Amino acid sequence: MCSASGGIELSMQQTDSAARQAPALQCTQWLNCQQALTLADLRGQVVVVEAFQMLCPGCVQHSLPQAQRVHNYFHDLGVQVIGLHSVFEHHAAQTEVALRAFVHENRLQFPIAIDAVAESGALPLTMAVYGMQGTPTCVLIDRCGRRRAQHFGTVADLQLAAEITSLLLETDSA
Amino acid sequence: MCSASGGIELSMQQTDSAARQAPALQCTQWLNCQQALTLADLRGQVVVVEAFQMLCPGCVQHSLPQAQRVHNYFHDLGVQVIGLHSVFEHHAAQTEVALRAFVHENRLQFPIAIDAVAESGALPLTMAVYGMQGTPTCVLIDRCGRRRAQHFGTVADLQLAAEITSLLLETDSA
Amino acid sequence: MCSASGGIELSMQQTDSAARQAPALQCTQWLNCQQALTLADLRGQVVVVEAFQMLCPGCVQHSLPQAQRVHNYFHDLGVQVIGLHSVFEHHAAQTEVALRAFVHENRLQFPIAIDAVAESGALPLTMAVYGMQGTPTCVLIDRCGRRRAQHFGTVADLQLAAEITSLLLETDSA
Amino acid sequence: MCSASGGIELSMQQTDSAARQAPALQCTQWLNCQQALTLADLRGQVVVVEAFQMLCPGCVQHSLPQAQRVHNYFHDLGVQVIGLHSVFEHHAAQTEVALRAFVHENRLQFPIAIDAVAESGALPLTMAVYGMQGTPTCVLIDRCGRRRAQHFGTVADLQLAAEITSLLLETDSA
Repeated sequence: MCSASGGIELSMQQTDSAARQAPALQCTQWLNCQQALTLADLRGQVVVVEAFQMLCPGCVQHSLPQAQRVHNYFHDLGVQVIGLHSVFEHHAAQTEVALRAFVHENRLQFPIAIDAVAESGALPLTMAVYGMQGTPTCVLIDRCGRRRAQHFGTVADLQLAAEITSLLLETDSA
Repeated sequence: MCSASGGIELSMQQTDSAARQAPALQCTQWLNCQQALTLADLRGQVVVVEAFQMLCPGCVQHSLPQAQRVHNYFHDLGVQVIGLHSVFEHHAAQTEVALRAFVHENRLQFPIAIDAVAESGALPLTMAVYGMQGTPTCVLIDRCGRRRAQHFGTVADLQLAAEITSLLLETDSA
Repeated sequence: MCSASGGIELSMQQTDSAARQAPALQCTQWLNCQQALTLADLRGQVVVVEAFQMLCPGCVQHSLPQAQRVHNYFHDLGVQVIGLHSVFEHHAAQTEVALRAFVHENRLQFPIAIDAVAESGALPLTMAVYGMQGTPTCVLIDRCGRRRAQHFGTVADLQLAAEITSLLLETDSA
Repeated sequence: MCSASGGIELSMQQTDSAARQAPALQCTQWLNCQQALTLADLRGQVVVVEAFQMLCPGCVQHSLPQAQRVHNYFHDLGVQVIGLHSVFEHHAAQTEVALRAFVHENRLQFPIAIDAVAESGALPLTMAVYGMQGTPTCVLIDRCGRRRAQHFGTVADLQLAAEITSLLLETDSA
């Protein structure tokens, strides 16, 4: 039912569905939504997780406007965009209250989660378990909850839309 | 074998496959390819026809760079981009020799056809039979040769890539 | 010695030099410079004060990159660019520590001052005394310390450079 | 009366006013103006000559939109922008009729001259006498008819406006 045959070749082709299950999001707060979202609850939808930091210029200039465009075009087609504020530097600056102001001023309309801070001061928990190298990082999760692509840095709209669409259409063929 | 179920909803959903067959291209010259392409020969591929005029600012600024990006990303996935020079004004300026210089200077790398001039001085033949309203116009033709979408004016990369990908994946499900 | 005849017509033509003296900057911190700058000390230079907030999208996208370009091109010609962080909203987010991280990440290289907070929670002091309506606001101060233009919102590079150059050349004619 | 002291340092500082006199424009046609312009007739104004080719991508994307912006902002301040169509390649494509269509479609509103073709098929005459290396080239001529700067390739709006303004203000000081 959740085969991943055909479609655009993504960076993480499934070989072992159990191993490829996307790790749970470990978040402490959610903005722009009534209650916490979980990947388990989102099963059946394609999920786009855009990890960012509010003071990361590449995120502000490229990835967050792109995430908003993806939300605008794909939301009604069955795609859930989630912003993930994964702070690994400038902790005193990139606080929750600052993030809330940032989201308001930039008119971001998709749900945004705050990645859980590690006790040791290391990478935040979701960022660490996903093995992200920095921000921006865009993760694509299929309708069956498997991580299928992970892009560090910028991705062109054409490629991102092709990959999302490919995942969207998998259930039709499975 | 060529059903059009599922996928992104395109602007021209098929209801009658015979009626929806994309009209043949009626061209007098081809640039950037060894011999004339026909939609019949391209059966099995998704075809993106980008109708333009070399002196149309919207084409030069938006649609032709986009067509080149589509060619770069999608060509190896089974998509044939075709530029169609559909001159309906400024005939003395937008000549074949001028087009060849334009294509060279702008480094367009996909095949480009010159739409056949009508005897009466009306719209060029392919433009007329497709009912195009002007340039730029982007036509999407599926693997079975059916016209599935036709956009007059600019289209965002996200939408165009979603539609192309949806057509690309149809044969997998049919 | 400090006449303002000739030149590009600026938005605040001088009529009464005493009245037009630019109010002193009232700042609590300076970044990117060793010690506080005062308009009195800068007499003889043209001063460009770019009032901004780090969470103001128009500032981040337009005015601060423009201020950096002005700094790059005009600094050696006798122009001092000063960023003025005039926080009138989101006070808990736009803190000094956040500003320092923002300036670092965006590689701003000109001196930046923090506008003094009013006791009453009203507009910061410099913003208030200059009668600024919001951010971004760009103020031009001539070699004699007079405020000669004040632009709320975005200004094109062509106009800004023309006005700065006009002020730069006034001492030659006075 | 036409000294060139003070101001922004331009690429061609005058040392010998006779030798620096800008060569006459040698043009065969004028668009967007009732009659041919001559540098002699324009004495007293600052003249910006933007040499271009209609099929030169750098001209279409950067220099001609910039020339239009310069015209819009500076015309009423005493600056005459002149487009100079200096065709040195693709002669069969970049014809007068093609240029007229191009100017119309791109809504260029400043006077445009067609550089005279050399008999030998070499560079057009104005391009040759100015020693231009290609297109785009932007030439600045002062109120006294002297060539003061010549930029091959793109120039930033800030620099171009500073140089133009500097020339504009010279008569005030001379």
